[in-house]
Amino acid sequence: MDKLTAALSKMARLELATLPTPLHRMKNFEDELGVSQIYIKRDDMTGLGPGGNKIRSLEFLLGEALRKNCDTILVAGPLQSNLCTLTACACAKARLRCVTVHNGTEPKEYRGNLLLNRLLNVDAHYIGDVSSEIRSQYTRNLAKELRSQEKVPYIIENGGTSGIGALGYVSACVELQKQVNEHGLQVHTIFAPGGNGGVATGLIYGNALLDMPFEIIIISVESDSASLKNNISRTIAQVEQTLGLPFNRRLEETCQITDSYRGEGWGLNTRESERFVHRLPRMEGIFVENVYTSKVLVGMEDFIRKKYVKKGACYLHTGGVGALFGQY
Amino acid sequence: MDKLTAALSKMARLELATLPTPLHRMKNFEDELGVSQIYIKRDDMTGLGPGGNKIRSLEFLLGEALRKNCDTILVAGPLQSNLCTLTACACAKARLRCVTVHNGTEPKEYRGNLLLNRLLNVDAHYIGDVSSEIRSQYTRNLAKELRSQEKVPYIIENGGTSGIGALGYVSACVELQKQVNEHGLQVHTIFAPGGNGGVATGLIYGNALLDMPFEIIIISVESDSASLKNNISRTIAQVEQTLGLPFNRRLEETCQITDSYRGEGWGLNTRESERFVHRLPRMEGIFVENVYTSKVLVGMEDFIRKKYVKKGACYLHTGGVGALFGQY
Repeated sequence: MDKLTAALSKMARLELATLPTPLHRMKNFEDELGVSQIYIKRDDMTGLGPGGNKIRSLEFLLGEALRKNCDTILVAGPLQSNLCTLTACACAKARLRCVTVHNGTEPKEYRGNLLLNRLLNVDAHYIGDVSSEIRSQYTRNLAKELRSQEKVPYIIENGGTSGIGALGYVSACVELQKQVNEHGLQVHTIFAPGGNGGVATGLIYGNALLDMPFEIIIISVESDSASLKNNISRTIAQVEQTLGLPFNRRLEETCQITDSYRGEGWGLNTRESERFVHRLPRMEGIFVENVYTSKVLVGMEDFIRKKYVKKGACYLHTGGVGALFGQY
Repeated sequence: MDKLTAALSKMARLELATLPTPLHRMKNFEDELGVSQIYIKRDDMTGLGPGGNKIRSLEFLLGEALRKNCDTILVAGPLQSNLCTLTACACAKARLRCVTVHNGTEPKEYRGNLLLNRLLNVDAHYIGDVSSEIRSQYTRNLAKELRSQEKVPYIIENGGTSGIGALGYVSACVELQKQVNEHGLQVHTIFAPGGNGGVATGLIYGNALLDMPFEIIIISVESDSASLKNNISRTIAQVEQTLGLPFNRRLEETCQITDSYRGEGWGLNTRESERFVHRLPRMEGIFVENVYTSKVLVGMEDFIRKKYVKKGACYLHTGGVGALFGQY
């Protein structure tokens, strides 16, 4: 067993996802772009709830929570947060209580992920249109209150982006390399979203420790490149500490991080990203949503059209179909 | 290769589904019922569009359409029809034009599967609250019109239930047996929904031709048992003709068909089925909907509680998450 796999196998982990997720070609997209070898890694098919990337992080986050004998998971996010819904699904399976904190107002009608949360009977706190700092403060206060009631809460901080949470995509990188080698596929350049930087950190760190089998392109959907780079660097340092294996590289030589496709920022469509919410289903019968997955497609298409991709592209579909039903 | 696999391999088939679909245990459900060996076959994860059982049928239906050089697929169903949405996804992937005919009124707001249809840019005809006979007549007239425009239409009749459409679950039965044997699992009694009878026919016929490795329980969600039996018998005869392999058994010895859990019929919840729309997510983090999948769970639970299941149960999750978002 290689060093990375050995280090990962020592971490507390709760089996939640159906792995490996499928990897297949998008032939109509290839035809449209006049190239071959465009793959899609179906992390929208992780198999719990509506699927999506956060299930991979939750395997390690809830693994740690159970190791620490926690009984209540606190998680915060906007109303249509994929993380909140997937945490609630994971908690159901792990028999843990789940409390969600939303910066937003309780809606009259439950759409998208909010419908799923209601079916899951989540204990949801709607705290109005506040900053994420106030949301965090509220969550920490809730945890304090729970402790005073003899509960043992575990807070999922920062959208699940941490040294523990990022292990989901360290592990996914190992999975992808194995899948590619087993089937002899030409998959080289991976396109993934950069929000908080958890997926990005996992992929970049994993790829570096595997001696760079892939080229990683991170499409920011939220911050400017400099801020996203800072987040990723900080989280890489946390992963180094968690796994005890040094990264040993400068970030710049391990990936490209671009903010050219984020438009006005998180949750705000560009004309091109909104078009992809229609284009991908019409090409491949696969749905994407407006916040994360469509913007990555815009970036990938642009890179391919500019001939920056030399050896086969892979689009990491991070899910979010639950949110899609709340976006229209 | 056995006779059944050989016969199936001769049929025209378009690769659409991600197969085999996962098969895993529902441990919390087991705990709740105080038994072990309750499995779920994840046909909600067939990987195209919102997933679901109809993708398996569409592999053979569109396979035939392409063999006949058809260019336009006509499909009919109620507003939230899973078949219509999945046909549209499959047509996108196969580069075929898709026309849907709905007995219902065009809604002001596009929810659930109707949202997906809109993203797919389906050519949708809303023909008001008419009978399924009038809907079929309308669809046939459309086909005639298309022919006069030099198009080559293919009509998916009767909800995809036909000698061709049922091959999806003949094939699924072969897949399940292989999966169970490979992993040495104790999976014996399969619970599946009976609507038009396409899934049921495929499972029953496949199981009979494999010499009955499974016990098949069909939970009617629509018709009374006698009508469903007639539909299944008729479709089995069509499959015999399609594959050229005789069924050679009396239907009664190959399955149990019950209408005890359908309540007032198609699309009308019972108290127990509505409860399962909440219960399954809270136990397993997996969603079901109100028309098909929840009623099968009610039936399965009742069979298990009555100790009718001797050797391990398998719940066939036929999907429908797209419809769920239109049900609340």
